Amino acid sequence: MSSEVVALPELLAPVRAGLIAMREILSAELSDQGPVGERVAHISRFRGKELRAALVLLAGQAVDNRDPELPQVAAVLELIHLATLVHDDVLDGADLRRNLPSVHVAWDEQTAILLGDMLYSRAFHLSTRLRSILAASLLSLAAQRICAGEMEQAALRYRFDLDQDTYESIAAAKTAELYAAACELGARYKGEPGAWSDKEERKALELKAFGRELGLAFQIMDDVLDVIGKEVEVGKRVGNDVEDGKVTLPILWTYQNSSETVQARIRLAYQDPSVTDRLQALREACDLEAGLAFARRRAQELLHSALGRLEAIPPSAAREALQRIAEYVLYRKK
Amino acid sequence: MSSEVVALPELLAPVRAGLIAMREILSAELSDQGPVGERVAHISRFRGKELRAALVLLAGQAVDNRDPELPQVAAVLELIHLATLVHDDVLDGADLRRNLPSVHVAWDEQTAILLGDMLYSRAFHLSTRLRSILAASLLSLAAQRICAGEMEQAALRYRFDLDQDTYESIAAAKTAELYAAACELGARYKGEPGAWSDKEERKALELKAFGRELGLAFQIMDDVLDVIGKEVEVGKRVGNDVEDGKVTLPILWTYQNSSETVQARIRLAYQDPSVTDRLQALREACDLEAGLAFARRRAQELLHSALGRLEAIPPSAAREALQRIAEYVLYRKK
Repeated sequence: MSSEVVALPELLAPVRAGLIAMREILSAELSDQGPVGERVAHISRFRGKELRAALVLLAGQAVDNRDPELPQVAAVLELIHLATLVHDDVLDGADLRRNLPSVHVAWDEQTAILLGDMLYSRAFHLSTRLRSILAASLLSLAAQRICAGEMEQAALRYRFDLDQDTYESIAAAKTAELYAAACELGARYKGEPGAWSDKEERKALELKAFGRELGLAFQIMDDVLDVIGKEVEVGKRVGNDVEDGKVTLPILWTYQNSSETVQARIRLAYQDPSVTDRLQALREACDLEAGLAFARRRAQELLHSALGRLEAIPPSAAREALQRIAEYVLYRKK
Repeated sequence: MSSEVVALPELLAPVRAGLIAMREILSAELSDQGPVGERVAHISRFRGKELRAALVLLAGQAVDNRDPELPQVAAVLELIHLATLVHDDVLDGADLRRNLPSVHVAWDEQTAILLGDMLYSRAFHLSTRLRSILAASLLSLAAQRICAGEMEQAALRYRFDLDQDTYESIAAAKTAELYAAACELGARYKGEPGAWSDKEERKALELKAFGRELGLAFQIMDDVLDVIGKEVEVGKRVGNDVEDGKVTLPILWTYQNSSETVQARIRLAYQDPSVTDRLQALREACDLEAGLAFARRRAQELLHSALGRLEAIPPSAAREALQRIAEYVLYRKK
């Protein structure tokens, strides 16, 4: 895997036309009137990497799925993602998103809850306007898993005895399910009824597995960035996980490989009421380097496996873009 | 219209079998494992009047729609309703629901937001498992309107110059859309492809209009109960609207028909920071009786019109139940 960092938009060149079509659909969905319109306009500025939409389109192109509704499927993914962002900011008490005030800061918490709900419903409504039910079905299931994963994570706050499998199953539910659904839909979504061949089905399953491993690696790197990232680059506050009592992989590993004295110091950094900057306190309590390296290695391992999945797909510009997205995930700074 | 108050369960006898089937589906949807399961079990105790589910089944029976999936359609409605309840309690800061602690009190706000989101997605997923897309389509649209209505209402807090039309359009979005969708789905939902006759379509439209007027009357009476209801009977705190700055119909009318002196006193009851019990202060600031009577008359007018819609349907036990539900709305105490 090369360590060359490539800008994401450049990587997405093979599906530029599809992304433009997706953005038009999304803009139409985000153009309300009146007080609601003002609020929707604000969050439409949170539209960011469009990675989930790109995965739909790239997976589609990689298996030569030319269904004309793929940009609309991609738009549904982005709407669901936007809805989760708005609610996540309330859940995390995060006041900044893409260097803009989050909704509950610009307005209030009530607005953020309602806007998120509205976007969820709108995403589902858009998915019911597709000719096939597949996107509505997979995405409503993925959305449920995101919430269940977040709830489990909240129930396991301050649990330093968490095992890696549980951490990964939560991370998978929170993030990887939607990536997997994006890739699967790209490969299998078909507006017209009709069956895929066994070979096509196998490609779709490999792409789904690719999406799952990519998403899990993305979440692990997100947790790494929350510890090491620079606020101005990430575009949101760092140290949220420590603040919220979430024990993420780098910290989990550090804790479980530390002496009892250091473990006690880590717990204090998380929970001592007198601590004001918990991330700073954590950095002082222990040496996080080995834990961060462990998390990075796990992400790398997942991405290596993900890249192996792509062997099932014939070479193409789209496949190459998927490969380079995997590299991007490891080296991204935001 | 008689003033005899009948218990709701008795009214719903014609669709008892359908309601039992609906409850089984709902129970299966609300049986998670682990920490999520505990939280879901709590909110399943909020299941109440099942009025929306009953409307689906009664409207279906009234037009002899025997589609076997109607109980599942009804379960989707109830799930969406449960999701809105959980979020409403956060929005209103309400600590009590059916005399039980609301989710954000029993756990925390994060749990309430995530549980509501999960129930929304689960409702949509259940709707995608139906043979026809009609329920998924109508209900995802209705859910959007609920949120937009709530947002508009929040944007218009403390606006005593609100006109009745705006108040009603917000109340319609918040409540009546889902009632209308329930009745329309009961009359028109069909798992198998196939067209309805013009006569059947007309019945479905009348039932939809019936649901809309019933729902609007229900919301107006809800606003009346928030002013006059007894906590122990309503099962939730009263006076929430005044507390939240919502200017509802009885108060709107009172304000707009009061002297400037009284208007100033009403505004103080709503906004003076030193007031602790705003509902009590409002009661002392003005005579609400005429405004309450106006609101009740408006609800009665809507219900009268709603009953007229039922003339399009041949007499049956189901039609009679719909008629008596309209009476129940006017005289209910919770």
